[in-house]
Amino acid sequence: MNIKLAAKNKESQRAVRVGGLEFGRDFVLAAGPCSVESEEQMAAIARAVSEAGANLLRGGAFKPRTSPYAFQGLGLAGLKILQRAGREMGLPVVTEVLDARDVPWVADYADMLQIGARNMQNFSLLKEVGRAGRPVLLKRGMNATLAEWLSCAEYILHYGNPDVVLCERGIRTFETHTRNTLDLSAVPALHQLTHLPVMVDPSHGTGRRELIPAMTLAAVAAGADAVMLEVHHQPDRALSDGDQALLPAEFARLVRRIQVLRDALRQLPDIPPDPLAGGTGPNPENKEEVTP
Amino acid sequence: MNIKLAAKNKESQRAVRVGGLEFGRDFVLAAGPCSVESEEQMAAIARAVSEAGANLLRGGAFKPRTSPYAFQGLGLAGLKILQRAGREMGLPVVTEVLDARDVPWVADYADMLQIGARNMQNFSLLKEVGRAGRPVLLKRGMNATLAEWLSCAEYILHYGNPDVVLCERGIRTFETHTRNTLDLSAVPALHQLTHLPVMVDPSHGTGRRELIPAMTLAAVAAGADAVMLEVHHQPDRALSDGDQALLPAEFARLVRRIQVLRDALRQLPDIPPDPLAGGTGPNPENKEEVTP
Amino acid sequence: MNIKLAAKNKESQRAVRVGGLEFGRDFVLAAGPCSVESEEQMAAIARAVSEAGANLLRGGAFKPRTSPYAFQGLGLAGLKILQRAGREMGLPVVTEVLDARDVPWVADYADMLQIGARNMQNFSLLKEVGRAGRPVLLKRGMNATLAEWLSCAEYILHYGNPDVVLCERGIRTFETHTRNTLDLSAVPALHQLTHLPVMVDPSHGTGRRELIPAMTLAAVAAGADAVMLEVHHQPDRALSDGDQALLPAEFARLVRRIQVLRDALRQLPDIPPDPLAGGTGPNPENKEEVTP
Amino acid sequence: MNIKLAAKNKESQRAVRVGGLEFGRDFVLAAGPCSVESEEQMAAIARAVSEAGANLLRGGAFKPRTSPYAFQGLGLAGLKILQRAGREMGLPVVTEVLDARDVPWVADYADMLQIGARNMQNFSLLKEVGRAGRPVLLKRGMNATLAEWLSCAEYILHYGNPDVVLCERGIRTFETHTRNTLDLSAVPALHQLTHLPVMVDPSHGTGRRELIPAMTLAAVAAGADAVMLEVHHQPDRALSDGDQALLPAEFARLVRRIQVLRDALRQLPDIPPDPLAGGTGPNPENKEEVTP
Repeated sequence: MNIKLAAKNKESQRAVRVGGLEFGRDFVLAAGPCSVESEEQMAAIARAVSEAGANLLRGGAFKPRTSPYAFQGLGLAGLKILQRAGREMGLPVVTEVLDARDVPWVADYADMLQIGARNMQNFSLLKEVGRAGRPVLLKRGMNATLAEWLSCAEYILHYGNPDVVLCERGIRTFETHTRNTLDLSAVPALHQLTHLPVMVDPSHGTGRRELIPAMTLAAVAAGADAVMLEVHHQPDRALSDGDQALLPAEFARLVRRIQVLRDALRQLPDIPPDPLAGGTGPNPENKEEVTP
Repeated sequence: MNIKLAAKNKESQRAVRVGGLEFGRDFVLAAGPCSVESEEQMAAIARAVSEAGANLLRGGAFKPRTSPYAFQGLGLAGLKILQRAGREMGLPVVTEVLDARDVPWVADYADMLQIGARNMQNFSLLKEVGRAGRPVLLKRGMNATLAEWLSCAEYILHYGNPDVVLCERGIRTFETHTRNTLDLSAVPALHQLTHLPVMVDPSHGTGRRELIPAMTLAAVAAGADAVMLEVHHQPDRALSDGDQALLPAEFARLVRRIQVLRDALRQLPDIPPDPLAGGTGPNPENKEEVTP
Repeated sequence: MNIKLAAKNKESQRAVRVGGLEFGRDFVLAAGPCSVESEEQMAAIARAVSEAGANLLRGGAFKPRTSPYAFQGLGLAGLKILQRAGREMGLPVVTEVLDARDVPWVADYADMLQIGARNMQNFSLLKEVGRAGRPVLLKRGMNATLAEWLSCAEYILHYGNPDVVLCERGIRTFETHTRNTLDLSAVPALHQLTHLPVMVDPSHGTGRRELIPAMTLAAVAAGADAVMLEVHHQPDRALSDGDQALLPAEFARLVRRIQVLRDALRQLPDIPPDPLAGGTGPNPENKEEVTP
Repeated sequence: MNIKLAAKNKESQRAVRVGGLEFGRDFVLAAGPCSVESEEQMAAIARAVSEAGANLLRGGAFKPRTSPYAFQGLGLAGLKILQRAGREMGLPVVTEVLDARDVPWVADYADMLQIGARNMQNFSLLKEVGRAGRPVLLKRGMNATLAEWLSCAEYILHYGNPDVVLCERGIRTFETHTRNTLDLSAVPALHQLTHLPVMVDPSHGTGRRELIPAMTLAAVAAGADAVMLEVHHQPDRALSDGDQALLPAEFARLVRRIQVLRDALRQLPDIPPDPLAGGTGPNPENKEEVTP
């Protein structure tokens, strides 16, 4: 694996800050709709997820759609709506950027720039967000190995941006019951290979609303530093990905369950903190486990 | 999906009993070496895993090996060793059967018969264990869809055996960092499709010792009814799969963590029991989640 | 790759004989229905494929079906029908055997025993056909690497049977347009790794009748020693796999095209014979190609 | 499949012209090095492939590399070298463009713009080449279904550019012997779904020099309208992908074999021309084959 800056080592304790949040120290709960659709939609969802406990607001203004005839996002208007909704609720916002040319001005509206799965190896875009002065959420490509994914993070770090969070969102396999196969083993594996925080996206990772709660809890137990969940107050009318959006009430209940799970894991003195609590620092226990 | 007997419905509350255990009611913790190697090895490991909290003993006497030149298992001698070790510790035993001709006599030594991933679609073998009068642990084939896997369970049920437990053990993908990709989304998905209990095998599912603890906890959080873990007191000398065997001390620590995790999940009155506690009965919450 | 007997070396010139055919010397054109359904069906199809140029007759009497409720084959009655149809037309027959217990008596009715994709790693069955005294057609498992496939061939050779032909039939990928993804690169790769002849099955490899002619010609051009094609006189009424069966007239036209293609390839003095003509002997040209 | 402009229909007879070439009418043989490395390298290779029969020159000036520390291409200097080499030999040139910002000026130096596998779903780039007024070679993404690939072509057509050629270059599977799995069934499948010409790249599709000749012939037999081959006069010193580059002499021999194969296929009056000769027009035979 040809990574230097992304590789875990003794000095690698750096946490990633987004607004007042600090990935690695705070558990980050990103939530929001797939697409920004309107002022009203965004305000309603932002309020709901904020009240339920989300601390990072998501929403897409540029949508990478398989078909040119599908809804492509509201663009600049969407960014403004997203920013206002975030400010209103006191939440930093993350949004996807698709085009290297858009990076500078999208960075004016977003606290964190997301690189989507389809663009993981869009090296022009990686270089540009490397120079953007904004933390980056780098999603795993649908068919990317861990080594390739980390090399893409290395691009961003190499071009000057140390603030990268990795987001597992499912890989493509032969299974058709789920939209993707969420590879949770990426979480502990990345925690051993890199100091970068790891987020999990069970919404894209399953593509089925009814599987999201169980997979979110599993992600937390696997040690994820953050999760991202799609929430929509009217999933049947969502312009994209309604099948995988939780209702606000479902989201609120899931957040409570996450909190209980995390509290339980934290209170145990004899359970080493790292794989459970999602810390990204060195893990003495794992070392011990390898050596009999 | 062409399943009848395996499909979940109103009447489907049946639990699977193995010795004094009841899958679905008791959380089952299967542990033991990959292969039965000797009387001493098996006695030492059985004692260690039993003291740590395992309630089902595993050990292979017939090993499906990629190469004809690899260790193929001790056969009948291994079965006898396994049975003695189980009796000594008061644990029921599960062991793999590879050949339809062996089913009747292997059933004399084992409390539960395992069908391995490579034999998931060995229909002769499925029919034979369908008639065997012993509960069956059916591992998922490396490239099997959920629908195909359930059809294989249906074979066993159709031939007269209602006691089938499904075991997720990782699917084959392009990723090479892990031996397989453990598909934990199979757990909640199966809980919605079938009444059969679901076990998870993080040892084969990752193939890397250092990833096993995190993935075991994730499996529990995803709602698994059981986990299976390979344990060896001398992994460096194991005749097979030493890289993915936990040491007894590691196993003991992991068991404590599983217990804490499960206790926390159980104590929460406002968290519906099913996806968390691994029950296999109807799950009113999930239903509600699908309907806004 | 842990193979000895299956590995290509200086002495490895052995051809596989089935009836009067010799794989490696003769181009083998196996054809027939997926399942033996009746005396009349088998007679009609055997006549048609024989007249068109097939030199090996296929037909399944034991069908490995995903669902226990699907047609499972005629069993012994089917074997007798297949044998009679073959004798009538002077063609040797190949048929699948699913169960180690059946090998001895199925070998009485068949000139060649087929191990299906789902049983590639059914090691009991491999050992039994290793002792059967009949040539074996070993299909590639749906998710088998070349190394694993060759290890399965090694089992058969190691147990005493040198007459193994490998059959590529498509691997499982994420693509859903085709039933499987036919991996034709397996043909030249195997020709460099092993002396065993290589057959290609475009029927299962594509699962779509309209793609079969092109993929058959591609297989011949890639150097296949044999092809296997499903043919049915009434595909709409076939009890299995009708979608991928050619009509007799389509088959006849395809055979003429194969012959023209092979004639062209053979007549060229300056084109090294191996990769084009499908020979399995040493290929001096390929060696030269690797060394500049 | 949500395609309109890319879908095959009665009117869809359009061929794609690049310089004096016409895909669909002329068999296109694209060849050249992976990367443009120097004036001398490019001149030597251009001369060699031109003399051997190539009619389109390839060479990368912008290289999408997994690692930021790998050779990234010569950029503008490379484009100028490529253009001069093409003019010298009278060959049009094709080169990859990675960044939407580069499209207008790269189009000044290239006769055809290549979109690489990693950028297949880089929708910004697709829109930009849709407006570029240059024919586009659209490579299949490593994990793209045919439907997704055609949707990407639809983007380019929808944004105003009708001149798109599709290039199969292998998909990612579990197999590790080859770099990718070349999916030749994509060739006849695409010929039924779209009027766009289809190229095959056996160099990336196999990643192993010794497999390239057989897979090239297989591609021609499957009906490919074009092939692309990496050629290097000093593969051991190549700055990228030397393992999959043919030597000029190997390339020359392969071209003769392609010609013989194509001549044979063309001369047969009773063999319908389309699937063999690679034409992209309607194929009456295939239609007939579907209807018994």
